[in-house]
Amino acid sequence: MAKLYFYYSAMNAGKSTILLQSSHNYQERGMDTLLFTPSFDNRYQVGKIASRIGLTANAIVFDQSFNFFNFIEQEIKKRPTIRCILIDEAQFLNKNQIEELSTVTLQLNCPVLAYGLRTDFLGEPFEGSKYLLAWAEELAEIKTICHCGRKATMNLRIDENGQAVREGAQVEIGGNDRYVATCRHHYLLGDSGRDSQQNLFIINEEIV
Amino acid sequence: MAKLYFYYSAMNAGKSTILLQSSHNYQERGMDTLLFTPSFDNRYQVGKIASRIGLTANAIVFDQSFNFFNFIEQEIKKRPTIRCILIDEAQFLNKNQIEELSTVTLQLNCPVLAYGLRTDFLGEPFEGSKYLLAWAEELAEIKTICHCGRKATMNLRIDENGQAVREGAQVEIGGNDRYVATCRHHYLLGDSGRDSQQNLFIINEEIV
Amino acid sequence: MAKLYFYYSAMNAGKSTILLQSSHNYQERGMDTLLFTPSFDNRYQVGKIASRIGLTANAIVFDQSFNFFNFIEQEIKKRPTIRCILIDEAQFLNKNQIEELSTVTLQLNCPVLAYGLRTDFLGEPFEGSKYLLAWAEELAEIKTICHCGRKATMNLRIDENGQAVREGAQVEIGGNDRYVATCRHHYLLGDSGRDSQQNLFIINEEIV
Amino acid sequence: MAKLYFYYSAMNAGKSTILLQSSHNYQERGMDTLLFTPSFDNRYQVGKIASRIGLTANAIVFDQSFNFFNFIEQEIKKRPTIRCILIDEAQFLNKNQIEELSTVTLQLNCPVLAYGLRTDFLGEPFEGSKYLLAWAEELAEIKTICHCGRKATMNLRIDENGQAVREGAQVEIGGNDRYVATCRHHYLLGDSGRDSQQNLFIINEEIV
Repeated sequence: MAKLYFYYSAMNAGKSTILLQSSHNYQERGMDTLLFTPSFDNRYQVGKIASRIGLTANAIVFDQSFNFFNFIEQEIKKRPTIRCILIDEAQFLNKNQIEELSTVTLQLNCPVLAYGLRTDFLGEPFEGSKYLLAWAEELAEIKTICHCGRKATMNLRIDENGQAVREGAQVEIGGNDRYVATCRHHYLLGDSGRDSQQNLFIINEEIV
Repeated sequence: MAKLYFYYSAMNAGKSTILLQSSHNYQERGMDTLLFTPSFDNRYQVGKIASRIGLTANAIVFDQSFNFFNFIEQEIKKRPTIRCILIDEAQFLNKNQIEELSTVTLQLNCPVLAYGLRTDFLGEPFEGSKYLLAWAEELAEIKTICHCGRKATMNLRIDENGQAVREGAQVEIGGNDRYVATCRHHYLLGDSGRDSQQNLFIINEEIV
Repeated sequence: MAKLYFYYSAMNAGKSTILLQSSHNYQERGMDTLLFTPSFDNRYQVGKIASRIGLTANAIVFDQSFNFFNFIEQEIKKRPTIRCILIDEAQFLNKNQIEELSTVTLQLNCPVLAYGLRTDFLGEPFEGSKYLLAWAEELAEIKTICHCGRKATMNLRIDENGQAVREGAQVEIGGNDRYVATCRHHYLLGDSGRDSQQNLFIINEEIV
Repeated sequence: MAKLYFYYSAMNAGKSTILLQSSHNYQERGMDTLLFTPSFDNRYQVGKIASRIGLTANAIVFDQSFNFFNFIEQEIKKRPTIRCILIDEAQFLNKNQIEELSTVTLQLNCPVLAYGLRTDFLGEPFEGSKYLLAWAEELAEIKTICHCGRKATMNLRIDENGQAVREGAQVEIGGNDRYVATCRHHYLLGDSGRDSQQNLFIINEEIV
């Protein structure tokens, strides 16, 4: 019986790179994969997963009404070489969809690898994160670092002057340059590690 | 800077045993610890952490209005050899209390080890679990097994005949004999691995 | 197909406690276990696994010529409810025995949980550790702490005055009071955190 | 105090991709990195780290006599923004070099991330793997899959007809097309999942 995996991280840790590498590993061994990405992720274009380091792949688009179980069941009937489901920006899944994906692992015996954030810029878990953290058979962290050298676990939203933003909608059009991954200490301080001209500065703290 | 740890598991995995062992490790090296347990955990008596395998220790009792930061700050002033905070049944912490415990790690540089369940018998995360899963710098699973040999990740509530219960209050007086840790497959089936006389039976499935 | 697990740690981390808890978890669900301990572990008595925190259980004794596959295959024939093999002090297994245990997981579909040290007092891996670290499908650390508050990963041998010992046989009769688990920094310094009267002293370092 | 990390995996799991992503994460936050690769890794050209998925970066070449501590200490003096050391094919480090890298973490407070294989085609750990598995403060697996869908942990060497090779030098010029990552079961069977024409075939086994 296959498992549901949640690979979680803060912003800009390289989730999409690792998703695309995992898909590549399956394909290299002759096994097909299905890739999914939410429809409002229009950083690049609808239906693409793209990593900042330069990798891209086509992906099936899902919205809040998309039924994962029905879709995947049909696809596997057509193409029995499909052996892995990979989902980018999985924090945007809703509770029903995570139940469907769990059923994919149990009834279709196909592993599901979901990649996403734990929390929004206010520290609240997304609906998708909440249920993936609760139900996934395997939780694994993709690590990245705060500007101080510690592990980053929080996502700070900043304005055009690098100042912390503490209110607003959970998702804002405009993209990743408005978020900085920080440790909890610098998240609470609202310290993005950049000055008002957006220059990076490195704080000489102990690396932990 | 110290970290917030969440050691999560299904019911009856041995969380209290591992908590008491970690506390013992600190004490053996000359470092003191503070142990906490929720006040309505009256399986044994108020102010005790007890593991099914036979270990016990006294613990400070907390309820929903308990302020962890103030209490721990005072205790460390009185006893600077305190080097670790350990919390049993941490799923019963509220959001404020987890913020306080996070502040303990940042301002008092004292690690906090929280042990608890991920989900209730309906599959919903507890308030404490939701925010510990979202914010803890380190997540680690304490594994246990379903009656089929797979890892147990869910908590099935059963009635006196071993039948699955699907409604009721999140917490019910009466204790652990009304819960069975299962894999997600047997949780959805409502299969506790026991017959109506509560005899255990082992299903001959593949171990995964 | 079952897996080979290696739970590794430094000295006095609580390996035996966690082994006994895992065995208890299986038995509580109606599944039997087989426990093994090396024959020269006569801290208590031959054929016992005992944890410093007070738990004990009988165990089957193995020496360097013991054939695990043949023994376990016979036992499972007699008692098909056996579902897990647990091995204490697994660093003392030899290469052949780890091959046998791997075959137990593959041919008898029975998981093997091995608990042991990574390295001896000179920093060299034991034969058992070397091959368990190389071959186990799952590696998991049982954490303990150095007297400075960091994680302990090394095992310092000390003499009766608390001074580091840097030569001698890999295994010495006399037991655990001659070993102190430390971080690599204090291992290289030979600093056991005790003065010449064996009093513990706590160094006020940052906890990492 | 910084830590020594060992990211281990079987062949062709994507180690170089993940190394390059981690380096990118540091650079994006204004922190410099040093990349190292062994000199006889001439798959591409001396002084390059290249991943099969298409990423490349320049790297400093090391051989068996290279002194990591002296080199890195000098570099950090010249460029204090260096905050992370990343090493590809770390199984080819020798024991002295791993001691040097450990000293880098302790004395220069700079984390070292080493990426490498656990074992060669005969199942023996490399010298570098042996000591990284023994000493690294953090061990983490980069997962890949066998042709049967299980996790791959072993490296099978095959000849031009896809047949298992069981003798020969530990390192052979000629490259990655002569190795197939498999689970232990298919490693022992010598089953690379390819027929004599090197066609991939998928075995219909349960995914574990």
